[in-house]
Amino acid sequence: MSDESEKVVPKQELHTFVVRAMEAVGLQSDRGSVLADLLVSADYRGHYSHGLNRLDMYLNEIKSGTASKENKEPDIVKESAGTALVEGNNLIGPYVARFCMDLAIQKAKTAGIGFVSCRGSNHFGIAGWYSLRAMEQGFLGMAFCNTSPMMVPPRGTTRTLGTNPLSLAAPANNGDSFVLDMATTAVALGKAELKDRKGEPLPSGWTVDKSGHETHDFKNLHGLMPLGGKEESSGYKGYGLAMMVETFCGILSGGAFGPFVRQWKAFERPANLVSLLLFGQCFIAIDPSQFEEGFTDRMQTLIDACRDQPSADKDPVLVPGDPERNHMELCDKLGGIPYHENQITFANEIAATYKLAPMKTL
Amino acid sequence: MSDESEKVVPKQELHTFVVRAMEAVGLQSDRGSVLADLLVSADYRGHYSHGLNRLDMYLNEIKSGTASKENKEPDIVKESAGTALVEGNNLIGPYVARFCMDLAIQKAKTAGIGFVSCRGSNHFGIAGWYSLRAMEQGFLGMAFCNTSPMMVPPRGTTRTLGTNPLSLAAPANNGDSFVLDMATTAVALGKAELKDRKGEPLPSGWTVDKSGHETHDFKNLHGLMPLGGKEESSGYKGYGLAMMVETFCGILSGGAFGPFVRQWKAFERPANLVSLLLFGQCFIAIDPSQFEEGFTDRMQTLIDACRDQPSADKDPVLVPGDPERNHMELCDKLGGIPYHENQITFANEIAATYKLAPMKTL
Repeated sequence: MSDESEKVVPKQELHTFVVRAMEAVGLQSDRGSVLADLLVSADYRGHYSHGLNRLDMYLNEIKSGTASKENKEPDIVKESAGTALVEGNNLIGPYVARFCMDLAIQKAKTAGIGFVSCRGSNHFGIAGWYSLRAMEQGFLGMAFCNTSPMMVPPRGTTRTLGTNPLSLAAPANNGDSFVLDMATTAVALGKAELKDRKGEPLPSGWTVDKSGHETHDFKNLHGLMPLGGKEESSGYKGYGLAMMVETFCGILSGGAFGPFVRQWKAFERPANLVSLLLFGQCFIAIDPSQFEEGFTDRMQTLIDACRDQPSADKDPVLVPGDPERNHMELCDKLGGIPYHENQITFANEIAATYKLAPMKTL
Repeated sequence: MSDESEKVVPKQELHTFVVRAMEAVGLQSDRGSVLADLLVSADYRGHYSHGLNRLDMYLNEIKSGTASKENKEPDIVKESAGTALVEGNNLIGPYVARFCMDLAIQKAKTAGIGFVSCRGSNHFGIAGWYSLRAMEQGFLGMAFCNTSPMMVPPRGTTRTLGTNPLSLAAPANNGDSFVLDMATTAVALGKAELKDRKGEPLPSGWTVDKSGHETHDFKNLHGLMPLGGKEESSGYKGYGLAMMVETFCGILSGGAFGPFVRQWKAFERPANLVSLLLFGQCFIAIDPSQFEEGFTDRMQTLIDACRDQPSADKDPVLVPGDPERNHMELCDKLGGIPYHENQITFANEIAATYKLAPMKTL
């Protein structure tokens, strides 16, 4: 263990705990298992905000009826050789999203590319999990999701778009890869929360207050700035990218979009308005063998050119996916995922609430 | 005219001047006409850096042999229902790129989506021109290009990737639209040049010196920062987006990529290495009718939600494409495109060099 206040949980132990917890609110274990795969992957990759930390949110989605525990499948509403429109039927996000990515992969096998847009889904966790699923089968994978409105456009005052993440995973040689998984806001809300907890001011280009002007004070935070920050540093580009993600998700699919997506952690279900509580998502798989031979060699050469240059200071130059790679190596050494003791307490509280055997630590 | 030092040139006059100039270096008029369409569109949309301003570069591409004036066509190397790999045969960029976008549109008509990656192309001007071509036929259009290495990755010191632009055009109602056309660097080099000409320091998050550290001094400029600027403001995201564009362009197509793309305005042609001087590009067309009906209505609703919110100061909130829309309206009022007198002088010098009738101004 790297820290006194940390405890290590084997991945399998976390997995079975998630399945048990979701069973306690009535979700079938095969579906809970998909969610568990996702949450384990998030924490293993070091995206702690999107792993175990979110378990209560997925429990609440089911308990509130925002997500359905019915034994239904997502429906393919419309399809062509390279595209599909999917209705998620309000099922849990990872179940819908995995279905969509598998459909995109299937289409890419014959049409070279598959592009699937879905509506009626719920929180799908880290976008990278779906891109990686395509990559593990030799494809380029992409995933997109609209999210609760948090971004205020440059010059504006209203939370109009979400953090709208996008992801691309592309294979290189010997298990190496390029894995981009990013929000289109400058930072996610969690980063601002972390600064606040440390008593530090919010950095330039992160957040705005109700008047639409930059704030460095967490208590005045009204919205997030897009990637690029203020207008002078091209915040309108991050804003455009968030609109691009929304175009692929809510606009193409006919689900909720932009300011009409549910507020963060809103589980109330207004009668007949449940569709406004759901998310739109998009998945792309591309078959590199339909292009010039030797894709992974060229990808590796580019990755190496990035990593192998002299660094400005002492920190090595990384490519997207390297921080996650480093974290997974740490976990493998430790024999599991290291958690702050507060997160273990949080899991134990869930165990007590639902009368489950608690998660064992090493 | 809006300014004493400006002169207005009717679009048709600019068009015929470009065709005449390209004929003078031996390019057939039908191909020169494609380039002229592109350059007129760039200036009409207000992207002056990529219009008439670039004419000498296209002339030099032909004169130096970097681009071929032979009466060849691009070749489809490989294709599937939804994808194609194109060899540009070293023809002028707009001719190759238009061919590729038309192929993507054709594939989208049957497969729902067309994704075309090409190599062996030359400078293709504004990415938005190709996206708009798809949009004008009712599709979502996207275009990407790798460019000369100018971006230094976060923590690094080496110009490893280009400004690698990406574009998405999506139709709304009554001619309204969302048109994103952006470099994945914080700014293009031209913006830094402009600051220097005004004697102003370079803003935060734009540029680095040879040591990889931020510089505000134009004379120390070694490279551009990615969108997002420094690490704290998420510059690694813009860096990841530039790698995404490179993946679609040079890596998939098997052309030059990353640090191996030719340096900016390098026209020397090393024997047997011409392929390293050429660019890779990528074009996507998506048929919105393959998804939920009413795409343009929803796009319009999102656009309106962005524009119609209270603004933080006096400037109205824009959506990507609005600055261009405003500039086109200005041109329509003026009866042509307004140019600074230096640009007219520049065009007259080209006319003198190639013994052409000069461009007439209003």
